[in-house]
Amino acid sequence: MEKKHDNFDLDNLDIQILSILMNDASIPYTEIAKKLIVSGGTIHVRMKKMEEMGIIRGSNLIINPQKVGFDITAFLGIYLEKGSQYNHAVEQLKQVKEVVELHYCTGAYSMFAKIICRDTTHLRKVLNEDIQSVKGIQRTETIISLEESIKRQISLT
Amino acid sequence: MEKKHDNFDLDNLDIQILSILMNDASIPYTEIAKKLIVSGGTIHVRMKKMEEMGIIRGSNLIINPQKVGFDITAFLGIYLEKGSQYNHAVEQLKQVKEVVELHYCTGAYSMFAKIICRDTTHLRKVLNEDIQSVKGIQRTETIISLEESIKRQISLT
Amino acid sequence: MEKKHDNFDLDNLDIQILSILMNDASIPYTEIAKKLIVSGGTIHVRMKKMEEMGIIRGSNLIINPQKVGFDITAFLGIYLEKGSQYNHAVEQLKQVKEVVELHYCTGAYSMFAKIICRDTTHLRKVLNEDIQSVKGIQRTETIISLEESIKRQISLT
Amino acid sequence: MEKKHDNFDLDNLDIQILSILMNDASIPYTEIAKKLIVSGGTIHVRMKKMEEMGIIRGSNLIINPQKVGFDITAFLGIYLEKGSQYNHAVEQLKQVKEVVELHYCTGAYSMFAKIICRDTTHLRKVLNEDIQSVKGIQRTETIISLEESIKRQISLT
Amino acid sequence: MEKKHDNFDLDNLDIQILSILMNDASIPYTEIAKKLIVSGGTIHVRMKKMEEMGIIRGSNLIINPQKVGFDITAFLGIYLEKGSQYNHAVEQLKQVKEVVELHYCTGAYSMFAKIICRDTTHLRKVLNEDIQSVKGIQRTETIISLEESIKRQISLT
Amino acid sequence: MEKKHDNFDLDNLDIQILSILMNDASIPYTEIAKKLIVSGGTIHVRMKKMEEMGIIRGSNLIINPQKVGFDITAFLGIYLEKGSQYNHAVEQLKQVKEVVELHYCTGAYSMFAKIICRDTTHLRKVLNEDIQSVKGIQRTETIISLEESIKRQISLT
Amino acid sequence: MEKKHDNFDLDNLDIQILSILMNDASIPYTEIAKKLIVSGGTIHVRMKKMEEMGIIRGSNLIINPQKVGFDITAFLGIYLEKGSQYNHAVEQLKQVKEVVELHYCTGAYSMFAKIICRDTTHLRKVLNEDIQSVKGIQRTETIISLEESIKRQISLT
Amino acid sequence: MEKKHDNFDLDNLDIQILSILMNDASIPYTEIAKKLIVSGGTIHVRMKKMEEMGIIRGSNLIINPQKVGFDITAFLGIYLEKGSQYNHAVEQLKQVKEVVELHYCTGAYSMFAKIICRDTTHLRKVLNEDIQSVKGIQRTETIISLEESIKRQISLT
Repeated sequence: MEKKHDNFDLDNLDIQILSILMNDASIPYTEIAKKLIVSGGTIHVRMKKMEEMGIIRGSNLIINPQKVGFDITAFLGIYLEKGSQYNHAVEQLKQVKEVVELHYCTGAYSMFAKIICRDTTHLRKVLNEDIQSVKGIQRTETIISLEESIKRQISLT
Repeated sequence: MEKKHDNFDLDNLDIQILSILMNDASIPYTEIAKKLIVSGGTIHVRMKKMEEMGIIRGSNLIINPQKVGFDITAFLGIYLEKGSQYNHAVEQLKQVKEVVELHYCTGAYSMFAKIICRDTTHLRKVLNEDIQSVKGIQRTETIISLEESIKRQISLT
Repeated sequence: MEKKHDNFDLDNLDIQILSILMNDASIPYTEIAKKLIVSGGTIHVRMKKMEEMGIIRGSNLIINPQKVGFDITAFLGIYLEKGSQYNHAVEQLKQVKEVVELHYCTGAYSMFAKIICRDTTHLRKVLNEDIQSVKGIQRTETIISLEESIKRQISLT
Repeated sequence: MEKKHDNFDLDNLDIQILSILMNDASIPYTEIAKKLIVSGGTIHVRMKKMEEMGIIRGSNLIINPQKVGFDITAFLGIYLEKGSQYNHAVEQLKQVKEVVELHYCTGAYSMFAKIICRDTTHLRKVLNEDIQSVKGIQRTETIISLEESIKRQISLT
Repeated sequence: MEKKHDNFDLDNLDIQILSILMNDASIPYTEIAKKLIVSGGTIHVRMKKMEEMGIIRGSNLIINPQKVGFDITAFLGIYLEKGSQYNHAVEQLKQVKEVVELHYCTGAYSMFAKIICRDTTHLRKVLNEDIQSVKGIQRTETIISLEESIKRQISLT
Repeated sequence: MEKKHDNFDLDNLDIQILSILMNDASIPYTEIAKKLIVSGGTIHVRMKKMEEMGIIRGSNLIINPQKVGFDITAFLGIYLEKGSQYNHAVEQLKQVKEVVELHYCTGAYSMFAKIICRDTTHLRKVLNEDIQSVKGIQRTETIISLEESIKRQISLT
Repeated sequence: MEKKHDNFDLDNLDIQILSILMNDASIPYTEIAKKLIVSGGTIHVRMKKMEEMGIIRGSNLIINPQKVGFDITAFLGIYLEKGSQYNHAVEQLKQVKEVVELHYCTGAYSMFAKIICRDTTHLRKVLNEDIQSVKGIQRTETIISLEESIKRQISLT
Repeated sequence: MEKKHDNFDLDNLDIQILSILMNDASIPYTEIAKKLIVSGGTIHVRMKKMEEMGIIRGSNLIINPQKVGFDITAFLGIYLEKGSQYNHAVEQLKQVKEVVELHYCTGAYSMFAKIICRDTTHLRKVLNEDIQSVKGIQRTETIISLEESIKRQISLT
């Protein structure tokens, strides 16, 4: 009978620091320190601790895909011929750079992916040539996003 | 007959800068400049241009949700009583902080959401009390991610 | 006990004339006459007869929708709140000019439509504002064509 | 970063000419010229340009299939054993003359076809002997049109 | 704790008599008696007993519906707005003479019907005007029989 | 261009005779003759004509399956591995005596069957041992009738 | 950030005691003590602790439902008109004694129930009169168990 | 024509004894005897009879799975490649100790299972490594219970 979670040694200050940077990773530590009424060194210490704990994965510049020519966001329900081909299929799909998320999931599908393409011609090529040719993938169901109305990170507070 | 896209005034240098920062937003411009063999000022100019063009939305600290106690990632197919209730439902779902993505989509569902919860008890509460009580939402189909095998940004190159 | 079909008084010559013009309505009768080794007057007589019988509906210039900016062809399965709202819904959908075909059909859907739109933004607007707001339409399932691999008229021969 | 569309050099006059002929390809250019208050030569020049641009594909005589004995219009959702068999299946289906439209599509089906048959006996033969025997086609779902309530071309204006 | 079945007082002779007449109700009792090597009176007695027990419902002349102009056999999955409207819907559907079988059933549908119509136009009218207008019927899914390959009574032996 | 139907040489008298016997095949011709105010010979002549035309298939004693121990009526949607295995599967299913109807059909299923069994144990055996072991049958979906609320022949009048 | 689980103060001895009694609750503590080579008092102490911790809910005599006339085990997927009617529906379904399990669940259904009935007539009554008449329940999908091939408790070891 | 059920020789007293012990198997026979105003010997005689008739299967200690670290209850719809692989699959699934119920069933699935796991990671492992690797199992659909609102035995009275 193992315990499921490590004790999270996060206090309110940790959570507030994370919340600020999850929205804007470019805010300098000094500014965060001023806002939370602690010293800049404290911010450094806390961030270091959370990096070591594996809580912080890194930081990303966020772009608007449409503005660089990627018009189509689609979700793919993927049916495998056999559920046991999952591990192999994951390795193959890592080679398809248009796949930005992949999940093993409950429900009707074996796997569930999010892909981003330039246009419907590009989508057809990715589906037909890159994804449906992966050994073990039987067929896919495509859901196309016609508008992204919410896109944000989880709120810790 | 309108033209669909603005002419994208992005050259190879722009794309390379974006690609580096999309993977790690904490890399200093001076280091990027050295890597791409241009001046640091050039990086500043290009970044400023791309911000003004709306290509760059900001930067995010990326955390590992499991490490802060959010164990469940789920996708929701949402059926509306009437497709025309979409705009209203979006406004309501913006108040539900566990909803991190929301799409108007093709296929069987009216809307498609991604939510992140602490555990199955939390998920039940969010579904039953927060989402299914939104006026116009008839019912939801939940797909639970049992493993996230790929999570990355689009590759511009 | 009524007979289901009128006796079709079409002979081989009629069928050959139709087949030629169904592929290219711009071919002059004289050319058809020469090809089929009959007089031009015969072609006129036969065409007149078939117009009067209601066999010939007219002729259409056929364009390539993509070339004039219509990138998206979609099929819509339409669910009505009540099957009995069909007649009313048809009248409303005639006002939506993007709807180019509409069928009352067997299977899961009440109605089945083909629509042509400029892009995904246009499609979202047509679905959400024009079609899903029609009284009696509960929801729609959208299938997007990613490539039209065959497009032709029926072959009479 | 390529531009998605050619600049469409179509002005209002082009659009008006197309709109007239898309409804009735038999109207003489002189009549169109009179209606749009331009010279007949202008119509010729514009049509020639649009043919060269690939906008105009040709013209079709439109018949009423029921009047020549084709009573059944059906839509087929086609499931392939493997999505990768698409190209081969298209080639085979081109040999089946009852298939008048074929699409590679999003959603549950791999391909989506429109077929026109004489009666239910003919439909059974086409499905069972001609389509389901194509290598790679696993099964089909048939939707039968019981009434075509709208059938028209896209409106450019 | 009631017993589920009456004791069936059927012996082998009863079963043999039923089996013969279920295939051809026009065979005279004397011929059956000779075949089974019993007296004609025995057949009468047994038939009378089985009629009184409610085992025998009657006899039907069996016709070929296609030969009298009824070309379409269809099965309908019927969804009710509320399962509780079943009794009312049955009463209404008894008025629709094209409905030849109706079942309350497990699975996705509330009710399941078999209907026989002259042609697709007749089917459209029955579905749209007679069945879908019944209060409580939300929608129907139609399966059309393209060929009846087996049609027989149960075998008692 | 073949004509779809034979001319049906049925007049009102034929229809009335059929209607009477379709409800009760045991009514003597003399009684029918009296009812329709024609001679008994006329009934004989008409019946003979309709038998020769293939309109009349025979007559059946109709029993109540529950009363002889057959409690379960079920409908089976049958998926074939390949639609082309239909003819073979029909031959095999003719050997399964519990199958009383079999159709080749539109919609999601390849074939659709009606079966009658004694109880759920019998049903399990028929499904698992007799039907699902037929070569080419991939899987079946079972709908169980919980009540037969309508059961009658088509009305010709 | 709360810890998800209490620390389970169960050691190997606790688990072994539970495992024995989960299979057969009638085994005397003295026999268990002998088997596990501890004193009878230890078993008492451990059982008392586990009862106080809420780990042990009680003990059940297990019967064979078929042997007392309950032939039908069915699973019901329940669709609510609105997901928000869940709490009310639970209260109502507690009054239906044939419902032996009820779950709020992910996937297509709002709720999922297990019911046990005497026969198909009883099942029809429970579905139609008791369950489908509950306010908020729109419709149900019934899956009938034709054979229970595994039925056991979880294995703790 | 066999009779389906043994005559159940259960009287009201038998039923009352069963009902008491089905809720709490730890109640001593003497207490039951007092409650039902019969001698303790009578309870013993009746219990012995019902054990010999196979009505009583045994008794189980009932625990709260969450309290020993089993957080996830899930239902699995299992599709077999061929329905005929059922017997083999049952044998394999008996080796997977997380499977606590397994049914051969009507509806879309070939088999239907209930499984209990520690957490989503455990569930993923059981699905992917233990269940989907069973020969003959094509794919599974998982429904996760987010709350068990009813859990009880059938009521005999």
